[in-house]
Amino acid sequence: MARRDGYLKLGAFYHEGGHHVAAWRHEQSDIGEGVESLVSFAKKAEAAKFDAVFLADGVSVRLKYPEAASHKAHSGVRQFEPITLLSALATVTDRIGLVATASTSFSDPYNLARQFASLDHLSHGRAGWNLVTSGDLESAYNFGHDKPIDHASRYERAEEFADVVLGLWDSWDDDAFLRDRQSGQYFDPAKLHPLAHKGRHFSVKGPLNIPRSPQGHPVVVQAGSSEPGKELAARTAELIFTAQQTLEEAVAFYADVKGRLAKYGRLPEDLKILPGVNAVIGATEAEAKEKFEELQSLIDTRVGLALVSEHLGGVDLRGYSPDDPVPVLEETNGSKSRQVLVSELARRENLTIRQLYLRIAGARGHWQLVGTPEQIADQLEERFINYGADGFNVMPPLLPGSLDDFIALVLPELRRRNLFRTEYEGRTLRENLGLRRPPNRFAQATAAE
Amino acid sequence: MARRDGYLKLGAFYHEGGHHVAAWRHEQSDIGEGVESLVSFAKKAEAAKFDAVFLADGVSVRLKYPEAASHKAHSGVRQFEPITLLSALATVTDRIGLVATASTSFSDPYNLARQFASLDHLSHGRAGWNLVTSGDLESAYNFGHDKPIDHASRYERAEEFADVVLGLWDSWDDDAFLRDRQSGQYFDPAKLHPLAHKGRHFSVKGPLNIPRSPQGHPVVVQAGSSEPGKELAARTAELIFTAQQTLEEAVAFYADVKGRLAKYGRLPEDLKILPGVNAVIGATEAEAKEKFEELQSLIDTRVGLALVSEHLGGVDLRGYSPDDPVPVLEETNGSKSRQVLVSELARRENLTIRQLYLRIAGARGHWQLVGTPEQIADQLEERFINYGADGFNVMPPLLPGSLDDFIALVLPELRRRNLFRTEYEGRTLRENLGLRRPPNRFAQATAAE
Repeated sequence: MARRDGYLKLGAFYHEGGHHVAAWRHEQSDIGEGVESLVSFAKKAEAAKFDAVFLADGVSVRLKYPEAASHKAHSGVRQFEPITLLSALATVTDRIGLVATASTSFSDPYNLARQFASLDHLSHGRAGWNLVTSGDLESAYNFGHDKPIDHASRYERAEEFADVVLGLWDSWDDDAFLRDRQSGQYFDPAKLHPLAHKGRHFSVKGPLNIPRSPQGHPVVVQAGSSEPGKELAARTAELIFTAQQTLEEAVAFYADVKGRLAKYGRLPEDLKILPGVNAVIGATEAEAKEKFEELQSLIDTRVGLALVSEHLGGVDLRGYSPDDPVPVLEETNGSKSRQVLVSELARRENLTIRQLYLRIAGARGHWQLVGTPEQIADQLEERFINYGADGFNVMPPLLPGSLDDFIALVLPELRRRNLFRTEYEGRTLRENLGLRRPPNRFAQATAAE
Repeated sequence: MARRDGYLKLGAFYHEGGHHVAAWRHEQSDIGEGVESLVSFAKKAEAAKFDAVFLADGVSVRLKYPEAASHKAHSGVRQFEPITLLSALATVTDRIGLVATASTSFSDPYNLARQFASLDHLSHGRAGWNLVTSGDLESAYNFGHDKPIDHASRYERAEEFADVVLGLWDSWDDDAFLRDRQSGQYFDPAKLHPLAHKGRHFSVKGPLNIPRSPQGHPVVVQAGSSEPGKELAARTAELIFTAQQTLEEAVAFYADVKGRLAKYGRLPEDLKILPGVNAVIGATEAEAKEKFEELQSLIDTRVGLALVSEHLGGVDLRGYSPDDPVPVLEETNGSKSRQVLVSELARRENLTIRQLYLRIAGARGHWQLVGTPEQIADQLEERFINYGADGFNVMPPLLPGSLDDFIALVLPELRRRNLFRTEYEGRTLRENLGLRRPPNRFAQATAAE
């Protein structure tokens, strides 16, 4: 195959029991075991030199279909909130990045800026913030709203939210805190930069009451695939976690987003693109398929229907039979990126509702691979060298087994091809991802610079 | 002395370098050393069987007097945000409680309920939430306000905030999550309780997307000494962290608050009262005084004036000489409890501004002790047996030295008097504090109960 310099970047995306929607029913899945399961997951991923642990989030229980909700592990209930969880992992790991999802729709930039800066301090420079917006009704109901926030409004808020957070993270120069015992000067007031932000959604004077963090600021991660999502990412993100089914889609998305960077004065290498990948791995192709079918057989029909509904933006499919073709839908207010991807998949392959839920149950809209370590490495390599990805967010279908398989079987194959590191390049998440440490926007240039 | 059953409850209250306002200038203080200092503090306190680590918080940098702000370590800048910090400590400790301060004025009950519940899960039942309100202008400016929130409004919000958080913590019965692989039922919908709260400040449907936590809910801690503060504590708090200078004040406050519990159907033992204590310990009285004077001599005059101003609710003292008597002041919008205590102290002893700042610099409004281990134990015992306290929040003036002294010198003396434990009584913070595990308010009584 053709050459491309550098290694793949790999995220280790946790979900209780595994990412397959029926994983929790598998007798080998690790469920409800407390923080010890997470500590084990993070330590394994670190020993294998993954770039980061990745955690999703949401601010509601998805109860639209109560029967389905009570029969799945993916209804939005989590034992741990991601920021607190990653803080707990910070003191029991040394090198792996810690990326938590947090929504801009129902939180406050001052509080969020502080918590992620704190996580960056706690972890000595390993924090990342996956910025998302929340468009579902049930989340809105938990925060004083009586209807969901429409797509345009929540992206407008997200744009301003990101600006405020990034501004607050530059409240202090890196060397603002002198702590000079002799003179009694604790900080240098000339190195303090209040923000004085006044915008449509937020008015925030600053400064943040936390020193600038080891990475300059935590790595900014985003997932949006809509137009405003891609534009926000091009302007502010340093890592994109995305969902792409085919090589063509992946290459087109990659070129699209990277092509938007120049107008913001950014270089293509300032943003890394990591599609999700869900890999069921077997010593033979037959074994892999058998493993996959075992998980598929555990899917409850109610859960399958609800899953399709959710991935199509909340449309009600209860009047349909699972053997009906997937209906063509009007645009809704939910997550655009998932709707587009899942509708595309159904249309392209002319799927019934059941066929669609069987297709998305494993990877839930992400890229599903089932095969031998060599087959999987081939696929990952193809996407990488063709500039469809800078790496992947690995979503093990069954935990802990599928992570163990990926580490034991796929990583050695990637290393044999010189596609993945054997040791961390740096101490911080930024250094391992190959992202520069941002200068403080407010810092005075000095003669030495 | 007279007898009183049970042990003192002891909190270990951290501040970078120590609680004395000039501690950071002392050559033996540990400053700017990262999370390792905190890990060491928590592990020492746990080995010594303290009930909990306690962290204060604020959401602004106190810049009203910029010259003073830049010369002190108590201007509101902290390397870590408390919830993330205690989460980090949860995985490197086993038994000690973890109490973080978080304001109800500028955060959201759904987010806060989740994070503290998560901390309770992470720590296997060791979380506590110190509920405070924020009345300062600089905090208001960071959250879209153009003036401080007045005292009555912020207590009204705090009352409703507490109700929402407590309600969300009961979203699920303890046994709601079945995770029954055979039937495919993940949770029992009959054991799910949406909150459907609609009030003046908040509208929150619920349920919380996190299972009920190990302690039923985190221990609720409060600090308010104003009328609405005491009433809120009597209704909802399980632990009070308070500031009392004299035995008479302490006994009166204790009787006052405990006397308010009955009308809320609560027993005196449902609420523990822990005044802060700042102890400078020496082998002899002369050595203790020398240690104290060494810290006092490090106080910058600008810092002293700003400290008095801040403790009097933000009044401007820049027109005064440090040798003027403390002026009699009109009531302001700041923290009532501190204003009352500090004004009382100045009036009682007819202090000048300098004398007042020297008096409050060590303990910052809390009880200051300087003496031998026996003298300090005598004072603590006197307050305990006379029902002025159920224990104390220990605020070491210099860290790590003053905590080391307290553990090495005062705790053995307290144990000799059978006033403090030699081993933890339970696994959770609640068990060690002697607080019952609250039943879920929504759970159906069953025949077995």
